[in-house]
Amino acid sequence: MTCTAGELAQHLGATLEGDALATISGVASPELARTGDLIYLDSPRHRARAESSVAQCVIAKPGVRLARKTILHVSEPKFAFAKAADRLLPKHNFPSAIHPTAIVSPGAKIAKGVFVGPYVVVEEETEIGQGTVIEAFCFLGRGSRVGKNCRLHPRITLYAGSRLGDRVEVHSGTVIGSDGFGYVFGEGRHWKFPQIGKIEIGDDVEIGSNTTIDRGALGVTHVGSGAKIDNLVQIAHNVEIGEHSILAAQTGVSGSSTLGKNVVVGGQAGLGDHCTIEDGAMVGGQAGILPGKVVRAGQTVWGTPARSLEKFKEQFAWSARVPELAARVRKMEEDTSRRK
Amino acid sequence: MTCTAGELAQHLGATLEGDALATISGVASPELARTGDLIYLDSPRHRARAESSVAQCVIAKPGVRLARKTILHVSEPKFAFAKAADRLLPKHNFPSAIHPTAIVSPGAKIAKGVFVGPYVVVEEETEIGQGTVIEAFCFLGRGSRVGKNCRLHPRITLYAGSRLGDRVEVHSGTVIGSDGFGYVFGEGRHWKFPQIGKIEIGDDVEIGSNTTIDRGALGVTHVGSGAKIDNLVQIAHNVEIGEHSILAAQTGVSGSSTLGKNVVVGGQAGLGDHCTIEDGAMVGGQAGILPGKVVRAGQTVWGTPARSLEKFKEQFAWSARVPELAARVRKMEEDTSRRK
Amino acid sequence: MTCTAGELAQHLGATLEGDALATISGVASPELARTGDLIYLDSPRHRARAESSVAQCVIAKPGVRLARKTILHVSEPKFAFAKAADRLLPKHNFPSAIHPTAIVSPGAKIAKGVFVGPYVVVEEETEIGQGTVIEAFCFLGRGSRVGKNCRLHPRITLYAGSRLGDRVEVHSGTVIGSDGFGYVFGEGRHWKFPQIGKIEIGDDVEIGSNTTIDRGALGVTHVGSGAKIDNLVQIAHNVEIGEHSILAAQTGVSGSSTLGKNVVVGGQAGLGDHCTIEDGAMVGGQAGILPGKVVRAGQTVWGTPARSLEKFKEQFAWSARVPELAARVRKMEEDTSRRK
Repeated sequence: MTCTAGELAQHLGATLEGDALATISGVASPELARTGDLIYLDSPRHRARAESSVAQCVIAKPGVRLARKTILHVSEPKFAFAKAADRLLPKHNFPSAIHPTAIVSPGAKIAKGVFVGPYVVVEEETEIGQGTVIEAFCFLGRGSRVGKNCRLHPRITLYAGSRLGDRVEVHSGTVIGSDGFGYVFGEGRHWKFPQIGKIEIGDDVEIGSNTTIDRGALGVTHVGSGAKIDNLVQIAHNVEIGEHSILAAQTGVSGSSTLGKNVVVGGQAGLGDHCTIEDGAMVGGQAGILPGKVVRAGQTVWGTPARSLEKFKEQFAWSARVPELAARVRKMEEDTSRRK
Repeated sequence: MTCTAGELAQHLGATLEGDALATISGVASPELARTGDLIYLDSPRHRARAESSVAQCVIAKPGVRLARKTILHVSEPKFAFAKAADRLLPKHNFPSAIHPTAIVSPGAKIAKGVFVGPYVVVEEETEIGQGTVIEAFCFLGRGSRVGKNCRLHPRITLYAGSRLGDRVEVHSGTVIGSDGFGYVFGEGRHWKFPQIGKIEIGDDVEIGSNTTIDRGALGVTHVGSGAKIDNLVQIAHNVEIGEHSILAAQTGVSGSSTLGKNVVVGGQAGLGDHCTIEDGAMVGGQAGILPGKVVRAGQTVWGTPARSLEKFKEQFAWSARVPELAARVRKMEEDTSRRK
Repeated sequence: MTCTAGELAQHLGATLEGDALATISGVASPELARTGDLIYLDSPRHRARAESSVAQCVIAKPGVRLARKTILHVSEPKFAFAKAADRLLPKHNFPSAIHPTAIVSPGAKIAKGVFVGPYVVVEEETEIGQGTVIEAFCFLGRGSRVGKNCRLHPRITLYAGSRLGDRVEVHSGTVIGSDGFGYVFGEGRHWKFPQIGKIEIGDDVEIGSNTTIDRGALGVTHVGSGAKIDNLVQIAHNVEIGEHSILAAQTGVSGSSTLGKNVVVGGQAGLGDHCTIEDGAMVGGQAGILPGKVVRAGQTVWGTPARSLEKFKEQFAWSARVPELAARVRKMEEDTSRRK
């Protein structure tokens, strides 16, 4: 979609300096931009990149001036750029159609404006909401439900009964609703604890590639609205992810753990079972939270076992100084023995 | 399947108190149960949940009494519940059929009672045992063999020659038999070490979603009967996983490592190549075992590099006290210098 | 392919001792070899294995003699074995054909000698180079390009516009070109930072199973020629992987990090965003590199946060001795207090 600099400034609440009629049709980096692309500048370090770009329109902080550019002044350029991209970039260009090779159960309820791609399998009692795109090789198990304006990229599995809200985007290879990992040992072997619960994904959730989210054992696995989950993340049975929480790549959340709202978990972090991560807490990359632990609201933790970031840093700094500390102890010991 | 409380008590070796003719048709959590669902109570903490459930039948420890409930008394309620679920829950309801869109090589040997789903590809010289379910988009490479009563969920790849035993369940997205990761550097580039070995999975193995298990380089990768492997686990070439061993999510086992029987590996643990984890040993979550190391039978290890749990805990406790130790050393130094 | 020991010796630059006309038709381990298989011996420890093998031809170091064997003497037997395998093993035996169930856009440019397997989807404006094999269930998004003599194993997704060089091999389940993980928080929710950049894979790259490589956000994600990437690896947006670098399984590289040439990264390592790993550096397994850090050329680092291997080892050794150090401090304190 195309708009003028003036229209976009109004949409962003930006103060415009320059040509209000300049046409903007996309977003880009300064180096790759064409004239009609919008770029942004959020640090004086990148000023030269913006100046030498052929892009006509630049989002920048108040007070920034660039020769021959039309500037949209905002306090948070990167945010405004993302918001502008949300308006400018086409969501997709899939037609309203069901590919002839898609196998769609006669009982499935498919709303209007839906695209179902080649070699998709949609089992019975399934619902797909208006405007949703289901790309090639997706499998929607019996009774699964996908809301409106979702996009399932190619090769996604929804196990039977999986529920996705509206505007959910799932990337290729991801598996939603598979059995949790629970066994009880007895009579010389592992007996599977029943994994027959539910899996519910809220609205506006984005899930990366090759991620796995297990259904509840007897209860529910729930991903709150607005949550964002990266690639290769593992979410176990009965986990609750709060709204707008962020989980970076390769993180694992063990069974029955609860994350509050606006939690941020770095890459490769591991949360033991029955943990509680309260609202707004941050878990550093590769951190390991012991089973049953509570990370308090707003707290930042790191390390394995995880502790507060301040404590981690202090302990880490000291651990680096143990050799020197040991040398001082040895010196005192020698002095003492000499004195005797 | 449905049975009476009396029949189930007999199956479980439980002592029945209440209505032996009560009908049981499923399992559930206390909150979600309907009258005919079985629930279990294994801790006094959950007593109120069981009491307020509409479920009529409860598995509980000897001595537990609940008003208006039929109780099946056993020493290990959770185990009995899992065993009851194994009897009560339907294994699946797939018909004996090959979907018309499945591409099955004429030379493949498909036993009776097999379901082959839509868009499955079964290459030549393949065997599928009686009662096995192969769901949509699975790929069974040339010469692969799947035993009896297995279930392959949608979108699983078996590379050529992969062998699975009986009653194996594999979840969506998993890849079995891909090439191991081995190269020899020479003449300015990496040469692939041949990855032409075998991959054998025993009986009663369950493998999670998006897990990867490489074939042997020249030898064999083997997963023993009864082993349970979670989601996103990596098992490299020539690894041996012993019977009934458990590997939690996102764990990685490097080439030529050997795990004994009944080994338990926590999530995100990493085992270097040529490790030996003896029978019954436990490797904690996120632990890192150095290449070539041996973890003795029954030992529990943690940390990176992994050491015994006791040693880890002692060292961790002390590392938290280094700042205080340093303060004491400083005080002694000051006292000494003052005395001089 | 079959050759004589003499021909192979010439190809490898080996000195032959024995029957130059011995036929070699494959490679194997000593135990599994048949007469015509080549084996190798690179350590005196394995001498008995080679001697008792039925294989006639053995690659071994200069000076090694084995009764009744034809020996190809080279200084690096394992390398020579890999090079021999590269010559002896058939690359594949796929015909030049497009399976009737493959859905190939009329506008796609498919070179000669290409195999496109069952249920493959090739979107518009796509190019596939000569001799390339695309196996079942692969999805080649609009405008993607795969070079010559590549092999895409079953169930691989190339997002729109992905570019692969020549002789690239990608294993099953891998996703190339998915959206990077970038959001900007504002107005109470996460706004997606545009993920519309490029993804380019060089020549001779091998990528394992269920790995994920994101496209650039606005710029480019690039994997250099000769790089080898294992299973379940995560490579984020705008990452640069240098030529001939090696990334072991389950490693994660965060956004905008740069790896030089011949870098080696162990399994489960995590690199924060905007890191620089210079040429020839090594990152140990499970190591964690903090965002923005630089690992110097040739350096080896380990631990989280990563430091030089020497420093890590020294600190680790000392951390194990803190309890003993504390005991010594306590003894001095007691002595001092006694003296007072």
